[in-house]
Amino acid sequence: MSDIAKRFPQNPLLRPADLQPSSEGMQIICLLNPGVFTFQNKTWLIVRVAENTVAKEGVIFIPVLNDLGKIDILEIPEGHPELINTDPRVVKYMGLDYLTTLSHLRLMCSDDGANFYEPDGYPPLFGQGMLQAYGVEDCRVTLLEDKYYLTFTAVSSNGVGVGMRTTTNWQQFDSYGMILPPHNKDCAIFEEKINGKYYALHRPSSVDIGGNFIWLAESPDGIHWGNHKCIVRTRKSNWDSARVGAGAAPIKTEHGWLEIYHGANAKHQYCLGAFLLDLNDPFNVLARTTDPIMIPTEPYETSGFFGNVVFTNGHVVNGDTVTIYYGAADEFVCGATFSIKEILSMLE
Amino acid sequence: MSDIAKRFPQNPLLRPADLQPSSEGMQIICLLNPGVFTFQNKTWLIVRVAENTVAKEGVIFIPVLNDLGKIDILEIPEGHPELINTDPRVVKYMGLDYLTTLSHLRLMCSDDGANFYEPDGYPPLFGQGMLQAYGVEDCRVTLLEDKYYLTFTAVSSNGVGVGMRTTTNWQQFDSYGMILPPHNKDCAIFEEKINGKYYALHRPSSVDIGGNFIWLAESPDGIHWGNHKCIVRTRKSNWDSARVGAGAAPIKTEHGWLEIYHGANAKHQYCLGAFLLDLNDPFNVLARTTDPIMIPTEPYETSGFFGNVVFTNGHVVNGDTVTIYYGAADEFVCGATFSIKEILSMLE
Repeated sequence: MSDIAKRFPQNPLLRPADLQPSSEGMQIICLLNPGVFTFQNKTWLIVRVAENTVAKEGVIFIPVLNDLGKIDILEIPEGHPELINTDPRVVKYMGLDYLTTLSHLRLMCSDDGANFYEPDGYPPLFGQGMLQAYGVEDCRVTLLEDKYYLTFTAVSSNGVGVGMRTTTNWQQFDSYGMILPPHNKDCAIFEEKINGKYYALHRPSSVDIGGNFIWLAESPDGIHWGNHKCIVRTRKSNWDSARVGAGAAPIKTEHGWLEIYHGANAKHQYCLGAFLLDLNDPFNVLARTTDPIMIPTEPYETSGFFGNVVFTNGHVVNGDTVTIYYGAADEFVCGATFSIKEILSMLE
Repeated sequence: MSDIAKRFPQNPLLRPADLQPSSEGMQIICLLNPGVFTFQNKTWLIVRVAENTVAKEGVIFIPVLNDLGKIDILEIPEGHPELINTDPRVVKYMGLDYLTTLSHLRLMCSDDGANFYEPDGYPPLFGQGMLQAYGVEDCRVTLLEDKYYLTFTAVSSNGVGVGMRTTTNWQQFDSYGMILPPHNKDCAIFEEKINGKYYALHRPSSVDIGGNFIWLAESPDGIHWGNHKCIVRTRKSNWDSARVGAGAAPIKTEHGWLEIYHGANAKHQYCLGAFLLDLNDPFNVLARTTDPIMIPTEPYETSGFFGNVVFTNGHVVNGDTVTIYYGAADEFVCGATFSIKEILSMLE
């Protein structure tokens, strides 16, 4: 058994019923995949909240943000000949793809790292503009030189790419639009520059030739990116055979940059693994775990909106302990700890 | 009839048999999609030359560049149960995609713009490194502040992205690796900065949600790119319903940046159209042709390696006349002229 995660006894920490919907008529379907940061001596989560409209029999409602940032509802008759709704996350209608839910990002904080509440004065972050009309998802938070960098999935009918905003106080934000074009997600900026350059892990996907691999890019300013290289690929017949993607920013250790990543197999089981990058040349992959370090096994991980998923994109490091927060079954927010030494010992 | 191209009477200008293969054992299958530039008072083409290995009965040979830049040959038995070869351009074998041909870029020049020859001392450009192991394709050439920027499709098992090299003399080149990650191609850098920034058209593709649309990005240095926005989408039931992609760098006119682009329908017929971008804010699309400005009609355009294709990524402008060079049927290099005024009059 390679699962070396110590799950919080309080899991799941957050369920959809624990929060209020963002507006009347909406309902929260999933809480998932929080970014994590420390601010004002508290642990904060920036939780992805996936909502849809309260259902009506025989009709599928698709919420979409309009140019004014308000929610428009597309109504699709169930059983329509041009409707394909076999995936709980995406429907195809009249030749176009839509998400079944609209996600925004909700700020929550905690004094003990286990009990989270919504603080006053920190409003949610919604999609902005035509490239985020289907919402914003799975935010990574990087603290670099006293500024927080938020990298998140920006979804619209134009495609799925990586959006970025920055902040110092979590109340005012600067937006940099889409920093990585479709199809791309799972972007995590390193928390230090290396030889004067910013680095970011990201996960483009290919329509043919290629796959769902982890790439690394560099930047002079954190806003414009180039010199993209593929560093971690899927492994045939393994737990990460279908897709891999970075978690949060890598953890600096004396042995290298340690990255906890997710991998999925053809059956859409999402586990976590780790790899190690050279401290001075992060394009150089030093080692990778053969087995996963965490596997969905608990009931809240195996059953939910989309079962058999553990997915992390945020953590707090304290000495040898990394506390990850993770999305379980695409529905709940949970916590677990790892010993960094123990992860390093599994690298090959 | 909306086809307003005046084709060269000499078409096709170049056929596969007109050039020597790059090495013994290779054969040229297609000449296509040249970049175009003016240098030393001559018109130059940088032609994509697609080669494969001389065939042997019952075996499919797949040429791939190794780490040393030499060609390795993968042998696939025809009729293998894990071989899918229904597309003349791509085969799937044992779950992986391969190109049937390996492309490099060949420099050719001409005094009259119609008769091209290979000049001495200007060697071909081959793929370099693991991100170009399946070759380099469809190069656009931009002359900006006395430097030539070559943007081309870089293909490998990692995916299909945009590579860049620069040169001032076409003999020494600086390489900038992959400037746009997969899945991306059809990248054309503007030949002027606008308000101090570089701009580039490009064409990402989406695995779901989204499509094959033209995007515009900006850059502080021409190397690192950000602020990606979708500016031109496919149009349902039109000639450009399945995919659109930029041609060469846009032509500066008093009315705006005029871009000649290609579009394809679901039957893979490739035509040319045009759109116009605001001079000061190129994210603002001012107009677009409803009908194509060029349609594959001549025998060398309708029949060949991949028929029903006219595809341009290079031109020379002289007053009101733009001379495009184009790939026909993915096999021949041809020429045609347009009146810029006439294209502008078709914009809506």
